[in-house]
Amino acid sequence: MVKSTVRVSIDQLQNLIVAVLVRAGMAPENAAPVAHSLAVCEQDGVKTHGILRIDGFIDLLKSQSANGTAHPELARQAGSILSIDAHGGFAQVALAAFRDEAMAIARSTGVAIMTIGNSHHSAAIWPDIEPIAADGFIVFSCVSSRKRMTVWGGHSPVVGTNAMAFAVPRVDENPFVWDQSTSLISYGEVLLAARTGRDVQEGAGCDVQGKPTTSPQEILDGGALLPFGGAKGAALAVMVDILAAGLSGGSFGFEYSPPSSGTPSRGGQFLLIIDPLVANPTFDTRVSMLFDALRDAGADRLPGDRRYQAREISRVQGIEVDGESYERLRELAQQQMPRK
Amino acid sequence: MVKSTVRVSIDQLQNLIVAVLVRAGMAPENAAPVAHSLAVCEQDGVKTHGILRIDGFIDLLKSQSANGTAHPELARQAGSILSIDAHGGFAQVALAAFRDEAMAIARSTGVAIMTIGNSHHSAAIWPDIEPIAADGFIVFSCVSSRKRMTVWGGHSPVVGTNAMAFAVPRVDENPFVWDQSTSLISYGEVLLAARTGRDVQEGAGCDVQGKPTTSPQEILDGGALLPFGGAKGAALAVMVDILAAGLSGGSFGFEYSPPSSGTPSRGGQFLLIIDPLVANPTFDTRVSMLFDALRDAGADRLPGDRRYQAREISRVQGIEVDGESYERLRELAQQQMPRK
Repeated sequence: MVKSTVRVSIDQLQNLIVAVLVRAGMAPENAAPVAHSLAVCEQDGVKTHGILRIDGFIDLLKSQSANGTAHPELARQAGSILSIDAHGGFAQVALAAFRDEAMAIARSTGVAIMTIGNSHHSAAIWPDIEPIAADGFIVFSCVSSRKRMTVWGGHSPVVGTNAMAFAVPRVDENPFVWDQSTSLISYGEVLLAARTGRDVQEGAGCDVQGKPTTSPQEILDGGALLPFGGAKGAALAVMVDILAAGLSGGSFGFEYSPPSSGTPSRGGQFLLIIDPLVANPTFDTRVSMLFDALRDAGADRLPGDRRYQAREISRVQGIEVDGESYERLRELAQQQMPRK
Repeated sequence: MVKSTVRVSIDQLQNLIVAVLVRAGMAPENAAPVAHSLAVCEQDGVKTHGILRIDGFIDLLKSQSANGTAHPELARQAGSILSIDAHGGFAQVALAAFRDEAMAIARSTGVAIMTIGNSHHSAAIWPDIEPIAADGFIVFSCVSSRKRMTVWGGHSPVVGTNAMAFAVPRVDENPFVWDQSTSLISYGEVLLAARTGRDVQEGAGCDVQGKPTTSPQEILDGGALLPFGGAKGAALAVMVDILAAGLSGGSFGFEYSPPSSGTPSRGGQFLLIIDPLVANPTFDTRVSMLFDALRDAGADRLPGDRRYQAREISRVQGIEVDGESYERLRELAQQQMPRK
């Protein structure tokens, strides 16, 4: 059987996702930035963070863990720090509402920090920061998440897979952007390995006693994921909890309630936005030289390269979406639609 | 033969190192912050970054690569960014000169960035940032360095071992501080392995063609070190070059001239200083809860724990220094001393 695929434009796809999210209880203006995040992932070939994630969003909305009609609010502003309260909504909504203000601060003082507390993220970080880099800023961002990982010889999950992302503008080129979790493998990979009866790679997790294991089932049965790079990755994961949850007032990974409890848990996001030309007027030229040197040294697989290639193909041919998933999106968009 | 050791106070040790650096051409006021960095490493048992490093400093001074009498200068200030030109001196000198100003900015706007261009570092980063965290600030810092490492499938050294460090204040406790390179192992470890005929660990380096190798000689003969955590560590190493060299105007790792060329190469340091209470007034309590949770999860080897224990012992018993090294320091301090 040949698997059918459809080709859609980014607008078509985004509009369809908006419709799905609105059906699930989101206000259209809140749904738009979330839908955009998922649609650009599909456009860039990052299928793990595209429409595959839509069920997670719907579950959060249906269980009322996430607030689909939240009005994010400036909780506190002092100098160059904007502290946003997402009021239980998605971080993308808060970012869309206050991004221009943060960039204006960075333009004026050279640097701005935005914290988004009381928020859900559940998506890739790079779609949040690439547009800010395209406007000329260096951006570092990280997101705290539900505990899945243990650190420094521990035995129980205590921090999330705590992703961090970085973006830098380049002259006449797409921004250089990376986005990576601090765990060696993702929680999804553990679930998949358990389902298909395969082992996970060494170093990926430990059992309930903190002993290294390659059994996905032992990781899931009270064990934990482990950071990439051992103690060094652990240091990064804890930094993410401190910046993304500690500064924003969001929950630390270990404070999330069990998914079944019905009590909503809300994390946080941290964004650092720097205007590089304030620090160094020749920054743009200098960064071009660095990327030339990286290519000369044989670094031919830079983060983002594959995404930008996929984006180009999507622009010309449309975004390729698996037919069955697309059909399901269309159904979700029409479910419980009031009959005319 | 029993190895002799001496016990000295931090002041004794620091004064002796100052004398050595002054003999090598440094102004006493410039020597003090550098000597302090080495002395606290000895105090905290971090022998790799203590007096072992003194020869590197002397070489830089004697070859006139480093300027021992430089007056670091505020090259540019716009808003919350202080761009310091170290004028070829050591970064520690520039930091000591402008640290209070950076902290004052962070107190007022919530966040400050200091870049130190045209500088040498050659020491641990944690002694730079721990005192700032002790004053109540979150600090992230990184330092660019001579190319030793290749990234993302490359074959030639292009970035340094690019260390980064992070510090956060804790109530009634020493700050939580980590400091780690982005390479899997240090260049010193490769040199030592080559000298003793041992292999280095897998993943630590590649040969001149970019093929993974455990032979230290192949790494040294045109090969390169590799980042910890593969592509993820590479992303961090490149971020360090962008922040520490790109923003400061210092040399990127690949721009350093060969040590034998006589042309001085100067890198850069980046410091981000955040007043956490501006973002979140309950930050202190929240961070205490995180560290309790980390201990509860079994994380019993937190970065910095061993250092603080060693510091306590040094305070009570004096700093233990190997007798031969101490004697050599005393000789170096008296060398070429004008006769009375």
